Amino acid sequence: VSREAIRDLVAEYGLRLDEDRLEDWVELFVEDCRYTVISRENVAQGLPQPLILCENKDMLRDRILSYREVNEYNLHTDTHVIGPLRFRSPADIEASYSLFQTDNEGTSRLFSVGRYEMAAVIEGDRARLKSVRVVVDTAAVPTLLATPI
Amino acid sequence: VSREAIRDLVAEYGLRLDEDRLEDWVELFVEDCRYTVISRENVAQGLPQPLILCENKDMLRDRILSYREVNEYNLHTDTHVIGPLRFRSPADIEASYSLFQTDNEGTSRLFSVGRYEMAAVIEGDRARLKSVRVVVDTAAVPTLLATPI
Amino acid sequence: VSREAIRDLVAEYGLRLDEDRLEDWVELFVEDCRYTVISRENVAQGLPQPLILCENKDMLRDRILSYREVNEYNLHTDTHVIGPLRFRSPADIEASYSLFQTDNEGTSRLFSVGRYEMAAVIEGDRARLKSVRVVVDTAAVPTLLATPI
Repeated sequence: VSREAIRDLVAEYGLRLDEDRLEDWVELFVEDCRYTVISRENVAQGLPQPLILCENKDMLRDRILSYREVNEYNLHTDTHVIGPLRFRSPADIEASYSLFQTDNEGTSRLFSVGRYEMAAVIEGDRARLKSVRVVVDTAAVPTLLATPI
Repeated sequence: VSREAIRDLVAEYGLRLDEDRLEDWVELFVEDCRYTVISRENVAQGLPQPLILCENKDMLRDRILSYREVNEYNLHTDTHVIGPLRFRSPADIEASYSLFQTDNEGTSRLFSVGRYEMAAVIEGDRARLKSVRVVVDTAAVPTLLATPI
Repeated sequence: VSREAIRDLVAEYGLRLDEDRLEDWVELFVEDCRYTVISRENVAQGLPQPLILCENKDMLRDRILSYREVNEYNLHTDTHVIGPLRFRSPADIEASYSLFQTDNEGTSRLFSVGRYEMAAVIEGDRARLKSVRVVVDTAAVPTLLATPI
């Protein structure tokens, strides 16, 4: 059961972002959560400096709010394709991802590849996110305008 | 059991297309089926106009037949990489996909990204497709020469 | 149980390569194993000539050793995104993959797409690889410098 709950959670993670349901994406997290985006290079060199750091759910909410205010026109759409899950424990997984963006002209491009490290809390037959660390391979630096990866 | 049947079906969907076994791909559908390809833009704007519409299995068969007649030489090969499944019900799923094409010179390119919305019929330990709607992010318009997405 | 063991194995296959844990990747194989990379064109034409052939685990070890000696500086990082599994039997699977490489300048590119054909041995709740055939769509020829696909 718990593996299915985790699989459902990972599917929701990507699909809600792709649907531009960012507020619903935030609801996949528990209140006392952590969301980090960090480059692979920094991880390899032991440099803790992340590209994005949200230390609780309110910070995540703020980030989405800011994005909504700045980004009046949807500049791109996202497609996340996530690979098979490594279960480090029943509720901790790792998985690689590819993220494609399509611009207003209809051109799709590879935007980011890397890996998710997720820790979840299992509540009955569903799961919510306790922490997500996204280790990005690419130097593409997410800005305020960027949607979460 | 039913989730495994659906996972098997989705795997077959992509792999049979990639193997150029288009006639066997059609056999994944029930007779009274529907296959639609529509752009994400049209879905967002509530425009029902699809890029491709097959309203039953005979229309799908005709489409593949036409493709085989026109396309004497295989101009490209496909690779579908499909992401994790969102189960909307035991037999209804959504999943994002990336589709790459490789031409005769051996160059692989991103061809299309988007999302599948599939409804299946579960028959014992296997499943068949009742309807597939492919929501494509890209402006790449499938033509008669195109293989199914 | 056995399907989960195979899924775990496939996830480890990609993630260990992406982590540059090549020696640990070799440990996913049994001693009497086979690892082949062959082009889709050669498979279609019935030409058995592979691009890479390791006929047992020692040959795999040698290949990784040579790679480590030649490649003092890590020239790229890999991200494998593997699609859903077709179970040909409880221990034999096929799956499509996309492989992205990121260079030192931080640019990520599609490097190879194709398909895995894997045969595994199930040992309790885990599985190990008996044979892997990678059918690559792209003409990109893996060299001594290349990491496994």
